This record gives sequence, C-alpha cells and structure tokens, in this order.
Amino acid sequence: MSLKSRFVGTAKRQMKQTLRPVLQRAMAPARTEIPASYWGLEREPSQGLTLEGVPLKELVERWGSPLHVVHLAALRRNAERFQAVPPGCTAGCEVFYSYKTNPVPGVLSVLHGMGVGAEIISAYELWLALKLGVPADRIVYNGPVKSEASVREAISQGIQLLAANHAEELGSFARIAAEVGKRPRVAVRVSTDSGWAAQFGTPIAGGAALRAYAQARASANLDVVGLHAHRGATIRTEGEFTGFVEAVLAFTDTLHLELGLDLEVLDLGGSLCTPSVEHIAERDWRLNLTFFRDVPAPDPAQALGISRYVSLAVEMVESHYARQGRQRPRIFLEPGRAMTGDTQLLLGRVHTLKSGEDRTWAVLDMGVNHAECVRNEYHQLFHVDRPDAPASRVYTVVGPICTPGDTLYHAKRLPDLVPGDTLAIMDAGAYFVPFATSFSYPQPAIIALEEDGTDRLLRRAETFEDQVALDAVDPVQVNRAQQNKTEAA
Amino acid sequence: MSLKSRFVGTAKRQMKQTLRPVLQRAMAPARTEIPASYWGLEREPSQGLTLEGVPLKELVERWGSPLHVVHLAALRRNAERFQAVPPGCTAGCEVFYSYKTNPVPGVLSVLHGMGVGAEIISAYELWLALKLGVPADRIVYNGPVKSEASVREAISQGIQLLAANHAEELGSFARIAAEVGKRPRVAVRVSTDSGWAAQFGTPIAGGAALRAYAQARASANLDVVGLHAHRGATIRTEGEFTGFVEAVLAFTDTLHLELGLDLEVLDLGGSLCTPSVEHIAERDWRLNLTFFRDVPAPDPAQALGISRYVSLAVEMVESHYARQGRQRPRIFLEPGRAMTGDTQLLLGRVHTLKSGEDRTWAVLDMGVNHAECVRNEYHQLFHVDRPDAPASRVYTVVGPICTPGDTLYHAKRLPDLVPGDTLAIMDAGAYFVPFATSFSYPQPAIIALEEDGTDRLLRRAETFEDQVALDAVDPVQVNRAQQNKTEAA
Repeated sequence: MSLKSRFVGTAKRQMKQTLRPVLQRAMAPARTEIPASYWGLEREPSQGLTLEGVPLKELVERWGSPLHVVHLAALRRNAERFQAVPPGCTAGCEVFYSYKTNPVPGVLSVLHGMGVGAEIISAYELWLALKLGVPADRIVYNGPVKSEASVREAISQGIQLLAANHAEELGSFARIAAEVGKRPRVAVRVSTDSGWAAQFGTPIAGGAALRAYAQARASANLDVVGLHAHRGATIRTEGEFTGFVEAVLAFTDTLHLELGLDLEVLDLGGSLCTPSVEHIAERDWRLNLTFFRDVPAPDPAQALGISRYVSLAVEMVESHYARQGRQRPRIFLEPGRAMTGDTQLLLGRVHTLKSGEDRTWAVLDMGVNHAECVRNEYHQLFHVDRPDAPASRVYTVVGPICTPGDTLYHAKRLPDLVPGDTLAIMDAGAYFVPFATSFSYPQPAIIALEEDGTDRLLRRAETFEDQVALDAVDPVQVNRAQQNKTEAA
Repeated sequence: MSLKSRFVGTAKRQMKQTLRPVLQRAMAPARTEIPASYWGLEREPSQGLTLEGVPLKELVERWGSPLHVVHLAALRRNAERFQAVPPGCTAGCEVFYSYKTNPVPGVLSVLHGMGVGAEIISAYELWLALKLGVPADRIVYNGPVKSEASVREAISQGIQLLAANHAEELGSFARIAAEVGKRPRVAVRVSTDSGWAAQFGTPIAGGAALRAYAQARASANLDVVGLHAHRGATIRTEGEFTGFVEAVLAFTDTLHLELGLDLEVLDLGGSLCTPSVEHIAERDWRLNLTFFRDVPAPDPAQALGISRYVSLAVEMVESHYARQGRQRPRIFLEPGRAMTGDTQLLLGRVHTLKSGEDRTWAVLDMGVNHAECVRNEYHQLFHVDRPDAPASRVYTVVGPICTPGDTLYHAKRLPDLVPGDTLAIMDAGAYFVPFATSFSYPQPAIIALEEDGTDRLLRRAETFEDQVALDAVDPVQVNRAQQNKTEAA
C-alpha cells in the first residue's frame, strides 16, 4: 500500500472517529432497545435475567452453550390468539403452522396439541406431520416443489388441502388422483399485485388465475374447494393486510361470477410480522457501520398484533360475504414468524475479546451459523449476567466461523464484557433453526421452559460424531464395499 | 393497488421487455460461458455430458438427486500443483488444507493421503483431523475461537503450529501450556493493510503486531516459531498476491531487527481463487435482473493459477532472504477454494416449470439450501442431457424452498427444459457443503468419481429420519425422563 493511500486511509479513519460521538447524539434514534419485560424477562440483581423464575445463565450452565430456549407460555399465548373467535363474530380462523419457519418437533407438538394444523411445503414436512400424528384433515400442502410420491401420499391420506402453486401442477395432481382413485381437495395459489409473485402462485392480473381455476374445475379428479394466497412480504400494518385481503376477496367474486364457484376454503396464508423484529433499513445499517449510530429498535406496539390481525381477517371476510348474501368460507391462516418468532431465544457466551483501534470485537460461540437472520433484522440483544449495567462501550459482535460475514452486530453498545459472559439474542423462533448450518461448529441444543420453571430437552446438541455420521470416514473400505456390491449384483 | 400504479407498473414492464433484446445484443459480454472441456467434461451426443467416460445423468439415476460429485483426478491434480517444487527452487511449500472450505472426510482423506496437512479453526475440526489420522505435526490451528479443551488437546498432541488470532489469546496459550507441561510451537496472526482485518489478526500498522510478538516471546511457555498471515479477500491477480507477500516480508525484517527473531515458519494463509468462479459485480447483477443480459463469465486463463502462485511465493521468499544472507523460513500455504473449488460439481433436476409473462421459472430440486454461493458468484451451469442444444430460452432458475431468496440464476439462457432434465452446477467444492442447510429438504449425497470411471459413496444422503434424529419427537416422554433424572439425582 502506498504512503499516499495509507495517509488517506488514516485521515478517513480519524474523521469517522471524530464525527462518531457527534453524530451518535445528533442522529440518535428515538428508540434503541425493547425492554426485557416485553418478553416476560425479569431483572434480578443477583441472578441476572430470569424467565419463569429461572436465571437464563443457569440454563446455559446446565445444558451447554449456545442454547435455544423455547418459552412455552409465549408459544401457547400466540397459538391461543390465533385461534380465538374475535368478539362479535360467529367463528374464527383455522390455523396451520408454517413448518418451515421452525421445524422443531417439540415445538410443533405443542401447537398440534392445541389444535393447530400443519402447513407444509415438502415431502419431508409431510412425513414429519404424519409422524407427529397430525390428522390428514389438519394438513395443507403448498410450495412449488412437491415430489410425485408425496402428492400420492397426500391424496391417499386425504389431506385437508392440496394447493397448486402454478397451473402446471394441476395436470400431475389430476393424473395421480386418478391413479390413487381419490378426489383431493384442491386450491389454486394466486398472486396479487402486492407481495410475492415470481415462482409463487398464478397472477390474478391478466386472467391467469381465472384460467387456472377453469382448468382445475374441468378435471373430474379434482375437488376444487379452495383458494390459497400468501402475501410473502411481511405484514406489519393494517393497510398491508387489508389491501391484500381486498384483492383476494375481489377475485373470489370473479370466481363466483365467471365460474359459478363458491369457495369452501379461503386460505389467506401467513406473513404476519414478529412485532419486536424488523428488517434493518439500508440507511440505518450504513449509519451503524460507519458512525456506530445505534440501530433503531422497532416499536412492537405499533405493529399489527395477532388478535387484531385475526379480527380483521374474520370481519373483512364476513362483511364481504354478508353484503352479497352468501355464506362466508372457512378462513385458513398459515402463520410462521408471528406464531413462533418471539417465543424462542438463543443464549451464547463471549468467548474472547479483541481490542482494536476504535472498538472492541466480542467474539461469541454463536454466529451466523446459528443466527443468520440477525445479519439483516433487528433482534434485541441482552446481557444476561448484568442486564442493569450501563451499556457504555461499543462492541462489534461476531461469531466463531472464520469470515467477516460472521458479524451479528456491527456496532452495539453493551455493558463492559468479559469472556464467559452470557448474552441472549431475542426472537430466535423464526428462521434461525432452518437456516442453521454445521459450519465448523456443531448445532446447539433446543430446550423448552415451562411456566413452572421446569425445563426439558427438545433437541440435543449435535456432537462431533453427528457431524460425520453420514460419512464413510475411511473411504478405502467403502470403495471395497461398493466393489463387492457391484460384483455381487 | 390503484389503477394509476397498476398502469405505471405495466408501462415499466413493457419498456423492460422492449429494451431487453436490444440491450442484450448491445451490451453482450465478451464471454458468457466456460467450455465444458475446462473441467474435463465431454459431450457425447447420445449420453449428454460425461466425466471420466461416465454420463453424469447415470450418476443421478444411480445415487439420487441432488448429488455432489467429487472429481478425484482434478483434486489430485490441484494437490500436486500446490506441493510441487517450482523449477529452479530448492524446495516448495508445505500445504495445509483449509478444513472449513469443504469438510468432507472422504475429500480430506484423499488430500491427507498425498501429504497435505490440516488447517483447522475449531475444536470440531481438530477432532476430525485427529480422527482421520492426520499426524499432529501436520496440523495448523487458526481462528478467533479456540475452546480451552481444544487448545489443551492441541498442545498435548504437539501440533505443528498454534496461531494466536489476537494478542489476547497468548495469555491463555501460555497458561494452558504451563498446565500441560509442553511448549507449543506458536505463531501470531498479523493483518496487513490489504485484506481482512476486523476480528482477524493483529495489525502490523501502528505496531500492534510487533508488541504481540514481544509479549509472546516474553513467555517461557511459548515457542514462538512462526508468523501467520491470511489475506482473506480473494487473490485473483499476481499483484494482489505479491503486494500481500511484500508487506509480510517487510514485517519479518522488522521482527529480525527489533526482536532478533528469525522465523522458522512463514504461513501465508490461503485466499487463492478458483479460476472459473468470480464474484458477480453489482452492475452485472442488476443488468441481468432487469434486462436479462447474460452474466459475464470469468476467463480462467486470466486468473492466477496454482503453479504460478506457488512459484511466486517461493521465489519472493527465497530472493528476499537470499538478499539478506539469511536462511529462508519454511513456507506454509493454506489453500481452500483453490484446492477443492473446481473439483466438485452439484447435479440436480428440473422439478417443474412455471410459465410467466416474460420468462419461465425452472424450479429445481436444489436451491440455496445446497448451493448458497451461487447467489453471488458466477458458477457455470450445464444442461447435462442436451449440452449441445442451443441455449435459446431465458429461465429464472430457482430452488425448492419457499422464499424468493431461493433464486440461483435470475435470467439464464438454457436449452428448452422439460421436467426431469438434469443440470450441473460447476465448482461446488468450496463453501457449498459447509453453508448447506436442512431447510425443508434433506441434504444430498456426496460421491467420488475415480479416473477409471468407478464411483464410491463419501457421504450418504440425509434421510427424513436423520433430520429429526436428535429430537425428542414425543416431548411428553422426554419430560418424564428428565423428571426421573432429576428425582434420581
């Protein structure tokens, strides 16, 4: 590096360092953290953060670090809110949990025990739902890739709803249905002008969705009972949800008028937010990176909550159909992040600290290998041991895998850290587990914490042996076995 | 959506569609694909693409889809090039493969069988290296997170080199060494002005690295024999490498002058590119997204190759030390992507096609769950069954997991596809396996293909049962077991 470029680099660095405290104050966000009480956490001076009376620190000592903790009371509360009948309505919604969001059998079983069904998108998820004892009529099968064998199984079992992601799927559904000799309950997934399109759904605009319905109804092998729509893009406001539902309802009128089709099932998909999680805006991210300005925390009270969301769904559908003097269809919801996002937290420890010129790096035993979402979403971070200590020092919080991409928080004010301190990343119940990798480190255990403070293991931590359990560790022997097999054949 | 915004949307779409063919021609990249022969693939009219005489299509039929195929001849060729003594030199380099890049025991064993050592960054990787029978003196331990137990094991075993990522690690090395009663061979990781810094290494600039060496040498428990430097940012040109080596060599002079330290080991790390893979530039990515302009293919012949890289390393170090009349240190290299990147390919199948207004979506049975890197790197894609058919149609190639983020190729010209067609993603031997997830789908098998066309299984495909093997599928029973354990205690 030339002297000149080194000089420019130093000048830039010094300017940043000078501007940082000024900009941090001048541009300070209104809200920089969400209080621990939001999640039912309590601050006990001698024990640090506790949940259901149990010090979180104790859980890591007992079960190892890192550790996922499922808060069962929060999970049950969310499920109850989704299943409640809104005041003044005759019935509520039927709820199918989006398996892909947090496919932990111990979590799924709790939901199923409360009557929540399974929303699945793969052959594996169908297998898992059946293995967990979910009745076939509590399973909805979506997604762009459904293996032949899984469609056959779904039809044989008589699942609640088989949704054609795109018109091309209808042909194979009809063929397999004829072979099985059963008439599956089918929906067509449509896409509205807002939200996801691309590989998902058949557009209402331009008439493609209507043509798909006409095609579906022309097949004697398919029982076309439903419509499936999933916004995809996160729903945080009433307007985002009502705009979406209005577009869907308008299309149900088209189906009635054009095809004489009255739907039995209206599946409004998922996409409702976790109130305490929000995508970090590009500008906020850059200000944090350059000037260590705190990332603004979302205000959970401003987000559309579960109860209001369910009320809106039921009221909009009921009033729409009441105006037309027709019976309202059953309403299906497929929550993912809104159901489990804020019901799980990830505990980990500070492994080492590295002092730098303008900050300290806190290197944790957990990184993007276990918490990929933290790279671009706001997730509250708590110091478990000393939650009341002033957050006076700026840390760059990174994980253990050897890449600069393994950065969880670029510039985060925290109490003074020492190696061994326990930290809690909140809202780890959506897309943490499915996006986890075994990159250089085994995956953590998952435990459930009951309201009475008892805990139980849902998934044990991966061991080193597990990481190579599928491998032929001595390839020479495998080669011989393969040859023997070939010779014997 | 309002009529106005719908109109604007339609107008934009139509403009894009009109401009696309014009821009595709006017801005066509000079190079849009790398020939199959580059990887030793052959085009057989009746069999499609073959490798070592074996039709790739047959491999998927035999082993299932998706499927990783390790090309052993290519792997051995790369390892030989790294270990060769450059013409005119007295010795070459000692090579330690970066485990995290492709931690497949069957691949690692081949490399170890050729004398390549292990570069590890975690307790798991130390365990794996020892399990695979790597001699302790062929192990280098790097990275910012080293568990206490693994440092103890490394020192007890007497590994070749224990590198302190940052000065703070030296204290714990010394303490554990005193407890074990052995004096480990230690290096300090330094960072130069180019390449990675952040949580990695101690900066040469400002004197921090020199102070870390003084600190290390002050400990009677540490045998300070080496220097570790790893550029991090990919090395594609001679200039990128020579600039980095010059900065490192200048610092070795400082160590000699200031501390009287003559290094036994100079570890230059990794970071050499895979010639046929290149990060996709933002502009190229946007042009592809908006106007379906082909993504430019890198020219492998323009990239710094292994042999030239090794020659440069040896020549630069030898001549630097010769000029000073001092003996040159041993040179360690830690290749990752350059060693295995182009020695593995990922086969998968077209599951379904979805027609859209301006393109067709090809939905594969493999996506970012198995091939995360394809999101931002150029990876050649081949039609395995009809490699010679004209690539006349534009597809958006997506995977099976239900998110728009599961897009492998935004706009890719391919021969006409039909469901069941086999595709090959090239250069899957770096960071595909470690970044793989079990998101809704099990992970694929990995096989090795020998030069005589025989194949053998390195890692079997994950099964549905494997995906919940660590789970308490009936949480009620686990709860009871846990209670019994507690009561018994």
